[in-house]
Amino acid sequence: MAEITNVKSPRVKAVRRLTKRAFRDRDRAFLAEGPQAIREALRTPGVTVELYATTEAEARHPDIVAAARDAGVPVHRTSGEVMAELTQTVTPQGLVAVCRFVHVPLEEAVRPGARLVAVLAHVRDPGNAGTVLRTADAAGADAVVFTDASVDPYNGKCVRASAGSLFHLPVSINARFPETVRQAREAGLRILAADASGARTLDEVDLSRPTAWVFGNEAWGLPPELLELADEVVRVPIYGRAESLNLATAAAVCLYASARAQRRSLHPVEDPSTSLG
Amino acid sequence: MAEITNVKSPRVKAVRRLTKRAFRDRDRAFLAEGPQAIREALRTPGVTVELYATTEAEARHPDIVAAARDAGVPVHRTSGEVMAELTQTVTPQGLVAVCRFVHVPLEEAVRPGARLVAVLAHVRDPGNAGTVLRTADAAGADAVVFTDASVDPYNGKCVRASAGSLFHLPVSINARFPETVRQAREAGLRILAADASGARTLDEVDLSRPTAWVFGNEAWGLPPELLELADEVVRVPIYGRAESLNLATAAAVCLYASARAQRRSLHPVEDPSTSLG
Repeated sequence: MAEITNVKSPRVKAVRRLTKRAFRDRDRAFLAEGPQAIREALRTPGVTVELYATTEAEARHPDIVAAARDAGVPVHRTSGEVMAELTQTVTPQGLVAVCRFVHVPLEEAVRPGARLVAVLAHVRDPGNAGTVLRTADAAGADAVVFTDASVDPYNGKCVRASAGSLFHLPVSINARFPETVRQAREAGLRILAADASGARTLDEVDLSRPTAWVFGNEAWGLPPELLELADEVVRVPIYGRAESLNLATAAAVCLYASARAQRRSLHPVEDPSTSLG
Repeated sequence: MAEITNVKSPRVKAVRRLTKRAFRDRDRAFLAEGPQAIREALRTPGVTVELYATTEAEARHPDIVAAARDAGVPVHRTSGEVMAELTQTVTPQGLVAVCRFVHVPLEEAVRPGARLVAVLAHVRDPGNAGTVLRTADAAGADAVVFTDASVDPYNGKCVRASAGSLFHLPVSINARFPETVRQAREAGLRILAADASGARTLDEVDLSRPTAWVFGNEAWGLPPELLELADEVVRVPIYGRAESLNLATAAAVCLYASARAQRRSLHPVEDPSTSLG
């Protein structure tokens, strides 16, 4: 197999352009970097368009190269210099896949029967957004919605932080917030906005009901006009002296509190605090 | 007040050196950057040694400059160029304080009566460590222990990520792990190691008892010889398809699950899931 060594070749330039949102939107394609994300992409039929790999990465991850070939995905061997051009990480792992957009329309992501949905409104940091997506997946959420004021989930940092979760559950993007709330309510979900201004804390709210959690901006939270559209504004209790939690940890506490309460109500078991543990 | 403009002055060099661990350990001092951390440092008597501020930062944060003067802390006006030399952030906020070490001996941090302690063993990323410290503070933990295999909590990124929590609760550093476990057990705490290898999940363990949570390395978790010293290895349940949670979000889920269970058992209230919510 011939190795791609020319960093100025049209092919390399075309792939490199996908690090920019405008080109991603035009091509309806994005880049997934590193073994974990690419493994998950390859598990989803029809998503991976092509794979670029250095000789070292091919030797280190024969399973990925084999999975790509089995799926009919072209594998291009590239020099380290070309790989550096295609990746955005400081220490590239030698693997980049071009993937087709995976998001679905809002009404397909948020459907009747859903029990847990995460809505990212005004989340701007791609690392935070990807971490919330990963946490929502871990907590068994049915969908994640990125509103039009949030970061692009196909941003390289977001894809990396999601650790493959972008390929695991329905993700909707560019949704307007009021439309998202309407859709979630029609699907039978209660809309809880996580914000420090909430009158009640997590501990005081019934979390066993189907819920859409709304998470806001890292620095300033959620604007009043969005808070008003929620059924309730709920805060994570601060038991110590910290002023607040960061966005991704607050989202983890909310999503897991809901997931655990829903499971307790569906499968009631003896409360472990009353047994000897 | 004369402005410090010479980036090569001995004073600037002496402060700049505190970005390196060896010099921090020698001087028993570290740097706190930005308004939030410095406000919290100034609230703790005897901690802040001196404050460096640009003219713009002085104008933007008159409360901080006033608090420093009230506390007898010298305030040095510095040029933007000198500030850039003293800070490690890409967009410095114009304020740096030299602070005395705030950690306490292990036996002072982990005492009988403690109900919740976080132990960082082999946590290497300073941003993660600072986030766990902030979350432990928010969850009302009694102390945080950094073992000798973990990152230095006085690392600039860790101080920033802790968002002032480094000054809020007893922190112990350089503790050996077996010694930490012994001390925690003597203080009446149960040692729960958070690790994906746990036989039981969070949902199956009595979290209302006084607990020391142990968190391990970002990539490979906790080594077997440390897991063996814990009373139990507990995993965060993964309800969806994600392989794992990242360290800081897993720690948030564990610490808040404990804090909420302890509060429920101390102040039993009607389960909100049985009311109309």
